[in-house]
Amino acid sequence: MDTVGVALIGSGRMGAFHAETLARRLPHARLAAVVDPAPDAAERLAGALGADRAYTDVAQAWDDPAVQAVVIAAPARSHADLVVAAAGAGRHVFCEKPMAVTLPEAGRAIDAARSAGVVLQVGFNRRFAADWGAARALLDDGTLGTPRLLRSLTRDPGGFDPSRVLPDTIFLETLIHDFDTLRFLNPGAEAVEVSAVGDALVEPGWRDRGLLDTAVVTVRFDNGAMAVAEACFEAAYGYDVRGEVLGSGGMATMGDGRRSGMAFSGPAGRLVETVRGDQELFPEAYTAELAAFVEAVRQGRPAPVTGEDARAALAIALAAAESVRTGGPVRVEK
Amino acid sequence: MDTVGVALIGSGRMGAFHAETLARRLPHARLAAVVDPAPDAAERLAGALGADRAYTDVAQAWDDPAVQAVVIAAPARSHADLVVAAAGAGRHVFCEKPMAVTLPEAGRAIDAARSAGVVLQVGFNRRFAADWGAARALLDDGTLGTPRLLRSLTRDPGGFDPSRVLPDTIFLETLIHDFDTLRFLNPGAEAVEVSAVGDALVEPGWRDRGLLDTAVVTVRFDNGAMAVAEACFEAAYGYDVRGEVLGSGGMATMGDGRRSGMAFSGPAGRLVETVRGDQELFPEAYTAELAAFVEAVRQGRPAPVTGEDARAALAIALAAAESVRTGGPVRVEK
Amino acid sequence: MDTVGVALIGSGRMGAFHAETLARRLPHARLAAVVDPAPDAAERLAGALGADRAYTDVAQAWDDPAVQAVVIAAPARSHADLVVAAAGAGRHVFCEKPMAVTLPEAGRAIDAARSAGVVLQVGFNRRFAADWGAARALLDDGTLGTPRLLRSLTRDPGGFDPSRVLPDTIFLETLIHDFDTLRFLNPGAEAVEVSAVGDALVEPGWRDRGLLDTAVVTVRFDNGAMAVAEACFEAAYGYDVRGEVLGSGGMATMGDGRRSGMAFSGPAGRLVETVRGDQELFPEAYTAELAAFVEAVRQGRPAPVTGEDARAALAIALAAAESVRTGGPVRVEK
Amino acid sequence: MDTVGVALIGSGRMGAFHAETLARRLPHARLAAVVDPAPDAAERLAGALGADRAYTDVAQAWDDPAVQAVVIAAPARSHADLVVAAAGAGRHVFCEKPMAVTLPEAGRAIDAARSAGVVLQVGFNRRFAADWGAARALLDDGTLGTPRLLRSLTRDPGGFDPSRVLPDTIFLETLIHDFDTLRFLNPGAEAVEVSAVGDALVEPGWRDRGLLDTAVVTVRFDNGAMAVAEACFEAAYGYDVRGEVLGSGGMATMGDGRRSGMAFSGPAGRLVETVRGDQELFPEAYTAELAAFVEAVRQGRPAPVTGEDARAALAIALAAAESVRTGGPVRVEK
Repeated sequence: MDTVGVALIGSGRMGAFHAETLARRLPHARLAAVVDPAPDAAERLAGALGADRAYTDVAQAWDDPAVQAVVIAAPARSHADLVVAAAGAGRHVFCEKPMAVTLPEAGRAIDAARSAGVVLQVGFNRRFAADWGAARALLDDGTLGTPRLLRSLTRDPGGFDPSRVLPDTIFLETLIHDFDTLRFLNPGAEAVEVSAVGDALVEPGWRDRGLLDTAVVTVRFDNGAMAVAEACFEAAYGYDVRGEVLGSGGMATMGDGRRSGMAFSGPAGRLVETVRGDQELFPEAYTAELAAFVEAVRQGRPAPVTGEDARAALAIALAAAESVRTGGPVRVEK
Repeated sequence: MDTVGVALIGSGRMGAFHAETLARRLPHARLAAVVDPAPDAAERLAGALGADRAYTDVAQAWDDPAVQAVVIAAPARSHADLVVAAAGAGRHVFCEKPMAVTLPEAGRAIDAARSAGVVLQVGFNRRFAADWGAARALLDDGTLGTPRLLRSLTRDPGGFDPSRVLPDTIFLETLIHDFDTLRFLNPGAEAVEVSAVGDALVEPGWRDRGLLDTAVVTVRFDNGAMAVAEACFEAAYGYDVRGEVLGSGGMATMGDGRRSGMAFSGPAGRLVETVRGDQELFPEAYTAELAAFVEAVRQGRPAPVTGEDARAALAIALAAAESVRTGGPVRVEK
Repeated sequence: MDTVGVALIGSGRMGAFHAETLARRLPHARLAAVVDPAPDAAERLAGALGADRAYTDVAQAWDDPAVQAVVIAAPARSHADLVVAAAGAGRHVFCEKPMAVTLPEAGRAIDAARSAGVVLQVGFNRRFAADWGAARALLDDGTLGTPRLLRSLTRDPGGFDPSRVLPDTIFLETLIHDFDTLRFLNPGAEAVEVSAVGDALVEPGWRDRGLLDTAVVTVRFDNGAMAVAEACFEAAYGYDVRGEVLGSGGMATMGDGRRSGMAFSGPAGRLVETVRGDQELFPEAYTAELAAFVEAVRQGRPAPVTGEDARAALAIALAAAESVRTGGPVRVEK
Repeated sequence: MDTVGVALIGSGRMGAFHAETLARRLPHARLAAVVDPAPDAAERLAGALGADRAYTDVAQAWDDPAVQAVVIAAPARSHADLVVAAAGAGRHVFCEKPMAVTLPEAGRAIDAARSAGVVLQVGFNRRFAADWGAARALLDDGTLGTPRLLRSLTRDPGGFDPSRVLPDTIFLETLIHDFDTLRFLNPGAEAVEVSAVGDALVEPGWRDRGLLDTAVVTVRFDNGAMAVAEACFEAAYGYDVRGEVLGSGGMATMGDGRRSGMAFSGPAGRLVETVRGDQELFPEAYTAELAAFVEAVRQGRPAPVTGEDARAALAIALAAAESVRTGGPVRVEK
């Protein structure tokens, strides 16, 4: 297969970025179609990027022979069904995180892809970011030794709408990245127990409605390693993603967050601008994950981030949400 | 009072550093005596530093009118009794952490100092380190806003003797620093609940005997802030102490751990040497805390770190130890 | 004009990168042809990137109506003639630095482009790098005030063949970047006098044949600012490009040189890997300069880096070379 | 000799710091006397630090048997005569830089100390700063290989009085530090030729009176290494001292200039406070150089920074001043 025709499903902020990657940044991908229930949105994006088709129903994509694969960037709660549908239609699937919001759903998605023999990759983009890849290389070559303490954190620049945040969102949509990162940085180990606290600290007025905008999760792994995942929906200085592994051989730290290497030294001291958003921080990683997906499809190789990875991160997220409700540690479901 | 005569109790590694500070680094302090049950040790240190007296029994210090204050650097489990004895003898007290290992002991030490009207200061030296002081200044002037997420960690360079480490040591002697730091960085707030995990990851062979050499503690404060304290008895790269506060106004990070500002760029990349021990990292802070103690004594002012601070940090440490035993969250005793 | 058809002239290392940019990274460019006197080289690159044509003679490109513009990446000494030829054929020109190696040549190239009304842009890619752009923004908005002291340096990772290095190469091909950078960071000012030293320090055995592999150039500008440009053909740690401006309002520093934000702390200290080559350091800048060229062509706008800029940097380079020969300061020709 | 009695000559800003070091920071030094032509100044400082004597005439110090050594911190142009006088009186001498302002003066000072058999040390404090010492260690152990390119710079925080600055001050009093640093970082090599530019950029209105507040000096060494020394009397961000050595084995960089390791990340980005003055940047180095002097006196060892070092740095400074006057390169006098 020389070039992979891909339909983008969901033309929102992240979908638009992926669509542009497919249309312009990947020599072996082709943006075959844009699917969005809002006809204007689908057509506008398709037109801007030169996609051949704009569909309002995914079923149209299944009928389109130019579509060999899909990138799912629709709302989270529709992901698992879309994976099942795409696999059922024999299409390879790249699905934004979370792939599913319940474990049974995750199982169905995995099974569907396996039965159909299609590639299923999940959008844990940090695995493709330079810092994280470099740390993983030090784990793989033994430099870092056995992980003992890990950390992963995500802080958003703020400006969210509290009325649209469900209590589990911080676990299922934000910290799910960190849970995957912790697994990525502790290769071969699995989480066994989780203990979490969460609260509405950015928007205390919404606490009574169950808003969680800040959370800390402790994760114990079956190799003894302890990890902390932490998130907050508002950081005054922008978008902040960091990681750390302390192993028996040393420590790797990831995530500097500066906008460029330029520093201004003035009357107040030395100032480095900080990154303000995910697409500013991770453009290469977002591109690299789709490039890897396209190559997996072209070469008939397994995806570098699998449905099983998505399920494992989801299991941690669900345990964390449960831990906040029960106030105690929760076992991670296998 | 022009110069304060101080007896150093306990001539071990930290005691020797404090003795040298008293003898040489503080213009308004005088090393009046060294007390150590081992006569050789007391005499050797006293001789090297020009102290007038070497005692093997603290009672001798109480009889010495040249001794106006004591610095207690004896083993941790003797601290509280020594504070009570010194206060009973009318001497001002600087006590290394932990001031006590049980809350009743801590109460007795506080009461004794109060009754005697002597200064009681505890050795939480990080409060006097430049990075931490600068962060606190940003809290005090409102720049950081209300704290939401805090972190404090301690990693030792390794080489410890597992047979000498009690299960609670990591909480009572190591993380006690971090618990105090978290209180220092969340001014006016108090810890309400603690959840901890701990294990023998550096020395897994000692796990069955209850060794804890690695621990992660989540602390919730009464202002809603969440904090993580973390410790490990071995870091391949040396001695590592860091802190972080995310507040509504921004973030302060503390603790860089580099030995100097010199960087070597060679075939492997850019290398900065890291600090290897506490006395290398904190010489100014160790000196500054004693300078502050001496000034409090001279001016008749309260100590900048009190017995109550010691008790509050101890309460968190005891709750953390209990949380490891019970496997669930533990309320912090008032 | 929707898409600009571009012929790449010179399929060497840098030419191949530019060709790939034209073929894959720029939505509004099309790699119309590859021109290289070596037929295999031209065809191989054209084939790999899907260019329609491979030519061994530039005259063929002038006959090809699909070629609206050229990117010149042939050997330096052919640049000016190629610019003149391309302009004469009515093609827009992006020319790698140096655009010319004598001032009369530079003048002819500028005149040819002007007469033909084509865009002429020169490959001073640092202007498009994030650090340098951010510093320039601080100059443009007045934050940095009036420049007083500037610095720009280039260090290559080594491995060059001394037999292929002419005495002036370090000025005409390497430091020409730094001379342009200094002008870019001192907007509106022009160099008036240059004083330079140079030597064979990497390859002392070649000193007698006039090899210069290390040089330091002091440049005085007509606004009083003093600048230092410095180059060495070998740095054990890789490819190093840095800049600095001290102005009345503060200082901007550019160029960190690290490979990623990942740091490894191990027994030797904290290690950050360093960048090893120009294409690793500047991929975005190399892409952005061609994007800007394509937009200038499409919009009929002037190029952001002009032939006059190339001539001004060349005048400094020639003065520097002369200064090494004469051992004293040399006026920069207008 | 157990303790060295030292008279401080010149009770200005730097003198007061040295006096305090002698009185309080060095266990084996004693501040025996303070000498200052202004009786109030001498007595005030002596009183504050518990010195036994306050003199208005150095001759009084020569009559005082408690004075075994002197620290000269009087105005620069009196240094050489004071060294000669102290040596003539058999006193060991620590002299602030510059030790002399002409080469014959420097020769007389060196000769006087040698004849008298006294220790003569010069106040090039950067040799005692951690960053610089660490870089030198990498030169001494061969890690850096042979130096090729060096840099040393000094920037003051501003606020100087232009009417008190002589044209040569920037070379004789400021850059003299950098010239010594370059020699320190190029062990065994000597400067052979200097080329300098200088101007009044901070205070352009004073240019006509010969004020130089900004200068760049290129120095060639007899081992081929090229160096740049650079100074400016005003930096908006404080006091800035940096160094760099590129050798065949790699690069060492020195001088970070941050006030502490605390960073504040807020709406504007990440901010690190910068150092504002020499005594803030170099307290340990200022103390260490006097400690080394006192030990040299006590042990009868040679000084770690000699009169010959002072003369060699002076020769570079004089050549730089001459180069500004003549507009061309100047040989450094042996």
